Amino acid sequence: MMRHVAFSLAALCLAGCATQGQQGAAPALSKDALATQVGEKPTPTSPPTGQQWLYGSAEGSVASTQVYKAMAQYVRAKALNRSIKSQAVLSEGSTPDVPRFESCGTKPLAAVFDADETLIWNVGAMRYMAEQGKDFDPAIWNEWEKSGAGKALAMPGAVEALKTMRDVGVTIIANTNRTAANATGTQDALRLAGLGEFKHKETLYLMGDDATGSSKDGRRAAIAAKYCVIALAGDQLGDFAQAFNAKGLSVAERRKLANNPAIADVWGNGWFLFSNPVYGPSIRGGYDEIFTPQGKWEPAK
Amino acid sequence: MMRHVAFSLAALCLAGCATQGQQGAAPALSKDALATQVGEKPTPTSPPTGQQWLYGSAEGSVASTQVYKAMAQYVRAKALNRSIKSQAVLSEGSTPDVPRFESCGTKPLAAVFDADETLIWNVGAMRYMAEQGKDFDPAIWNEWEKSGAGKALAMPGAVEALKTMRDVGVTIIANTNRTAANATGTQDALRLAGLGEFKHKETLYLMGDDATGSSKDGRRAAIAAKYCVIALAGDQLGDFAQAFNAKGLSVAERRKLANNPAIADVWGNGWFLFSNPVYGPSIRGGYDEIFTPQGKWEPAK
Repeated sequence: MMRHVAFSLAALCLAGCATQGQQGAAPALSKDALATQVGEKPTPTSPPTGQQWLYGSAEGSVASTQVYKAMAQYVRAKALNRSIKSQAVLSEGSTPDVPRFESCGTKPLAAVFDADETLIWNVGAMRYMAEQGKDFDPAIWNEWEKSGAGKALAMPGAVEALKTMRDVGVTIIANTNRTAANATGTQDALRLAGLGEFKHKETLYLMGDDATGSSKDGRRAAIAAKYCVIALAGDQLGDFAQAFNAKGLSVAERRKLANNPAIADVWGNGWFLFSNPVYGPSIRGGYDEIFTPQGKWEPAK
Repeated sequence: MMRHVAFSLAALCLAGCATQGQQGAAPALSKDALATQVGEKPTPTSPPTGQQWLYGSAEGSVASTQVYKAMAQYVRAKALNRSIKSQAVLSEGSTPDVPRFESCGTKPLAAVFDADETLIWNVGAMRYMAEQGKDFDPAIWNEWEKSGAGKALAMPGAVEALKTMRDVGVTIIANTNRTAANATGTQDALRLAGLGEFKHKETLYLMGDDATGSSKDGRRAAIAAKYCVIALAGDQLGDFAQAFNAKGLSVAERRKLANNPAIADVWGNGWFLFSNPVYGPSIRGGYDEIFTPQGKWEPAK
């Protein structure tokens, strides 16, 4: 058996890359960003491990459904409860280590979702790129955003959960780093996946809607100005706060920030994370970054 | 960049492999079982993608904590609720497509967990094997079971969740395919990870405790004979029912069985799945097995 592994696939930056060099509408991935978001090569006959788990396995589908059910239950209870509500969006200027959440007043309720690998299973483009032996290819992805409608599927559990939320009067909004230039394609993809109607700048926010590139903070603030956002959902931490994508944050620092006591209770309780082991800022780090010294071990000689 | 990918790592069969050829205490992996449980190669400087996500990323730790919090909340509510309770263990002879769950009578409450990548983060052995460029090595794993205590860490969220469950009188039981021969090592590993006291054949069930090999069904039945098991937790479907590991079940059939209407409501509601994209029966399948024809797409020429 060969021992070689090559860097590959999926330099997707769909939940906001490191902020530097990301201003403007185009997903301008630096070589550094690419290098930290690599996955592994498919073979001619099999997709990479992460794709097997995420797109094919019973476990991957159950993991998605489990989060959707918990989220629907939470949103439904929150919507029916008459008590004072707070935004799940961090207040402007606050950070995950010192979070503030403003009270909602009388704004209508909304839940805000990332699109890719949160609402949408990008099975068409992911399969195509893997079968071609290609790394993530921005031109193919752009074509997928334009013409993937009908081939992009709903994530397991999404259709049922969105119905539960809408039935109690909660507006469903997508905030994605798909590009504003392809708004029609993404609206069509969401509708044909069975996820309902999304309208650009009303219930669909895209990269290019403002001048802050792949950061979703500005779009979240724009949504929270109109709605009481009682839940956020995504597969990458940038779907919750751009601070998690701060340049220079080490793997350990990022993990610590996400689990710090001031924010820990919000996971599963306003913020809902979906498992995506295929691409994104979660996929990076050498041995000493991934594994702490505490667990270092070797067998007795 | 190289395009080669080799099969590798992690032929772990910790939640029950395909039943055939699995009788007896030893984890006798067939070549077929190995071939369907491969992961991808690490590089000299980085662990494989799935390990980066699972063991290092903020997302991986949040995903684990999220499931633990939901489970603790469920178990606590169930324990405090005085209404009649049912086993979360399938009744003997019933299957996931026609499930039956017996009522508990007056048995004391328990929650049953898989160990590896459910209670325990196997960071020591996984790092060592990856850094050595090794495929899953049964001899190294055996040594890890014996001597890994203190280097095996608790999964994120586990310590707090177990405390919540024990505080309401629920007994915590592990049902794992670690071998009975290494019972002491596993008891020590669980205790030193901060997960509490586990005692072989009382609160710790191991492969070799009965004559059915890696199937956990018999051990689950033995536990349910003494306890009212109100929740099951694991990272592979064999942690819930051996029927999911039936030989010959295709990727699509297994996915369908796990999501069939008769059992779908149990996920997140008695059965709690943790995301493990690194090893196990979830990691298998070629393109046509992983991706349905419904989502097949290619860019316009």
